[in-house]
Amino acid sequence: AELTHFDVHGRAHMVDVSEKNVTQREAVARGEISMNRYTFALVKAGRMAKGDVLAVAQVAAIMGVKETSRLIPMCHPLFVSGVSVDFNLDENEHKIEVTVKVKTSGQTGVEMEALTGVNVALLTIYDMCKAVDKEMVMGNIRLLEKKGGRSGHFQRETP
Amino acid sequence: AELTHFDVHGRAHMVDVSEKNVTQREAVARGEISMNRYTFALVKAGRMAKGDVLAVAQVAAIMGVKETSRLIPMCHPLFVSGVSVDFNLDENEHKIEVTVKVKTSGQTGVEMEALTGVNVALLTIYDMCKAVDKEMVMGNIRLLEKKGGRSGHFQRETP
Amino acid sequence: AELTHFDVHGRAHMVDVSEKNVTQREAVARGEISMNRYTFALVKAGRMAKGDVLAVAQVAAIMGVKETSRLIPMCHPLFVSGVSVDFNLDENEHKIEVTVKVKTSGQTGVEMEALTGVNVALLTIYDMCKAVDKEMVMGNIRLLEKKGGRSGHFQRETP
Amino acid sequence: AELTHFDVHGRAHMVDVSEKNVTQREAVARGEISMNRYTFALVKAGRMAKGDVLAVAQVAAIMGVKETSRLIPMCHPLFVSGVSVDFNLDENEHKIEVTVKVKTSGQTGVEMEALTGVNVALLTIYDMCKAVDKEMVMGNIRLLEKKGGRSGHFQRETP
Amino acid sequence: AELTHFDVHGRAHMVDVSEKNVTQREAVARGEISMNRYTFALVKAGRMAKGDVLAVAQVAAIMGVKETSRLIPMCHPLFVSGVSVDFNLDENEHKIEVTVKVKTSGQTGVEMEALTGVNVALLTIYDMCKAVDKEMVMGNIRLLEKKGGRSGHFQRETP
Amino acid sequence: AELTHFDVHGRAHMVDVSEKNVTQREAVARGEISMNRYTFALVKAGRMAKGDVLAVAQVAAIMGVKETSRLIPMCHPLFVSGVSVDFNLDENEHKIEVTVKVKTSGQTGVEMEALTGVNVALLTIYDMCKAVDKEMVMGNIRLLEKKGGRSGHFQRETP
Repeated sequence: AELTHFDVHGRAHMVDVSEKNVTQREAVARGEISMNRYTFALVKAGRMAKGDVLAVAQVAAIMGVKETSRLIPMCHPLFVSGVSVDFNLDENEHKIEVTVKVKTSGQTGVEMEALTGVNVALLTIYDMCKAVDKEMVMGNIRLLEKKGGRSGHFQRETP
Repeated sequence: AELTHFDVHGRAHMVDVSEKNVTQREAVARGEISMNRYTFALVKAGRMAKGDVLAVAQVAAIMGVKETSRLIPMCHPLFVSGVSVDFNLDENEHKIEVTVKVKTSGQTGVEMEALTGVNVALLTIYDMCKAVDKEMVMGNIRLLEKKGGRSGHFQRETP
Repeated sequence: AELTHFDVHGRAHMVDVSEKNVTQREAVARGEISMNRYTFALVKAGRMAKGDVLAVAQVAAIMGVKETSRLIPMCHPLFVSGVSVDFNLDENEHKIEVTVKVKTSGQTGVEMEALTGVNVALLTIYDMCKAVDKEMVMGNIRLLEKKGGRSGHFQRETP
Repeated sequence: AELTHFDVHGRAHMVDVSEKNVTQREAVARGEISMNRYTFALVKAGRMAKGDVLAVAQVAAIMGVKETSRLIPMCHPLFVSGVSVDFNLDENEHKIEVTVKVKTSGQTGVEMEALTGVNVALLTIYDMCKAVDKEMVMGNIRLLEKKGGRSGHFQRETP
Repeated sequence: AELTHFDVHGRAHMVDVSEKNVTQREAVARGEISMNRYTFALVKAGRMAKGDVLAVAQVAAIMGVKETSRLIPMCHPLFVSGVSVDFNLDENEHKIEVTVKVKTSGQTGVEMEALTGVNVALLTIYDMCKAVDKEMVMGNIRLLEKKGGRSGHFQRETP
Repeated sequence: AELTHFDVHGRAHMVDVSEKNVTQREAVARGEISMNRYTFALVKAGRMAKGDVLAVAQVAAIMGVKETSRLIPMCHPLFVSGVSVDFNLDENEHKIEVTVKVKTSGQTGVEMEALTGVNVALLTIYDMCKAVDKEMVMGNIRLLEKKGGRSGHFQRETP
């Protein structure tokens, strides 16, 4: 038979990490959601009709971290050994800042896990506030810090 | 900007276990479902219309064990190295007892996996019998034994 | 070829509901978890180290409801149109009672969804308290009420 | 027994939509990821080592849309009847813009589905480029338009 | 800004079915797995060490049907209203034939659900027998029949 | 109470692998899908209406590999350290051959992961072509090679 090897353009694959060392790894990501003054006040007071927004977003972020490799196609599954989620409320610009820190002991970094946790927290905040505000904007989602592994310590210059 | 650190009441987080040792761990959990005499007889005879109740419950329990960390928010994902499921039929009180034993090699215990396996088995039995009996009650779901890890050997006094 | 039709013992299958009517349906389920006096006090005060136990259990229950048909093999997937979760704290017997109510508009009832929600809430409470109490027992998990569909209104005699 | 009804602060619940009409609904969301000039050029040329970034992000976005109600705790599951994903490459500011449009016929809107699709696409782009650029920033994620349902037609003033 | 609309080659999208009619739909798919004489005898006798192969494969097939739209990227999620799974044992050629029939009431057909159910059943049989036979081959997986929807009744000429 | 130990026929369980060594493991599986001349030409030209068939199938295969232990009941969850997917187009017989290679470092082999990846790729190709061809057949799905672990190196005689 005449066989044509079909090389899919750009050939997506999950990179082989089997030669990498198992080390302690950590990543911190952050992002924010801006809303109008009224929405912000309701969240802060814990009086949004759907429930306590930040308590739900915190649980959602932790569960989202565990779903990372099922959402991001080329991301390796890994054991997550610890997750923490923090919120800061910016009263002047009425926006909520979410910071997620993830730790693991494995062969790949956890920056995607931290970023996914931030994204799921922001989406959850949006969902619980959207009845009163459809104009909210999520942004400034970035990796702040990353430790462990071959590439060493990364720290963003402008956090 | 004026930033208020918002400390969510009770601050849920996934505990950091990265310093814990990787050891062999094992947990055994048990629970039961009570039903009326007629329902019990149908299950025992394997004649329930939806299929062989215990065969399906056994598969469901094993698959449920693997879903544990996706159902329980603060539960760590882990590698499961073995699962067994057993049933005892109590003819006098027409109830079915389910016992699930889970083994792993990791940094966290597997008691939640064993308990989740028991719960999913009981729910599956309920589902397959509910057309003939809506009054079934699931109960006495508890951890019987736990081995491995820092907290050592736990054995329930009254199994 | 000599073909033997292999009739798996008890022939599990997902019952065909395509002829059933689409109606408003509702189910209420309840269960409880017993713990020692000290554990109970920590939960009530929202001072368990892993976070606010009931806030996390509430979110877990709602997400668990949505996972029902993926956990229970013969259970039909369905659209869930509303879920509420309530807790009662029994000071005398230091146990926590969970009640889950689920609504849908569809061809099958939602009793499995309500029961699964109760079970996931109880497992989550266990998980968040297990560092201080391994002897907790989950029980008395039952269907309280069911409305809609061919079988009409079911109400448990002894709630 | 002395029962204390424990009202979890802010009482999260999944809002009951069983009285809402089944209508055609549609939502469009958009967001972007900024990267350095070199990373941008590699994506555009389809020469990133992990594979064709946009082709993978497109598939991830569509699969992410289908996961929405499993990631966002209070979000209703629904049938998705169509999804499209588009990319725009901004040569001057070397950023990639993602637009996701979702359609359904149901009782709830699909803005969370569209926003989740955008977020998963951006995370996938980040994942496939992070070996060469850790400073990428995801942002400006917002709802552009929403049709159908009680709240009528929403169109963001500044797209 | 200079914007280049990037048309991903072949533009994958989930086809919009919102204009299609909701009708009763049904699909039947079939496939087989060939094994050596000894493996076949063990399966038939229900004596494979890992458990009753066909009972487990039957449950797996039904659960696999429900996962279809999460595995196949462009596949629409849908309500499944009934599933049945059948096995035929071919004594001469020592192969096991699996037939899966799926019903639904919706806007899209269920052929992917039926085919996925067949595939998951075959993979499960492989998994439970692989300790004694690594040379098994799965094949002849095809759609036998499809009813409902715009394209009418399809029946394969050579079943 | 009179207790009857109920031994489910064939007693399915997840085999305990806790005593097995952690080693580098690898598996290669292959399968194919046959279609008519016209369908084949459309796939090859990347002109199928639903999108670039092979690009989508490649992503689906990699994501399917990660879902293996959730689909196959007795299959152990494991860390996947690398996945690659290749396509060959047979011009004469107008069929597409899919090869999936999976690597891991763990206590169990990855043959089920490789086979599941092949199956999901084939199902995805079917899904994206089914509007023009319902007679496609998937087949010849088998394990080609397996390295690592107690059973040593397996290589299929007739690939």
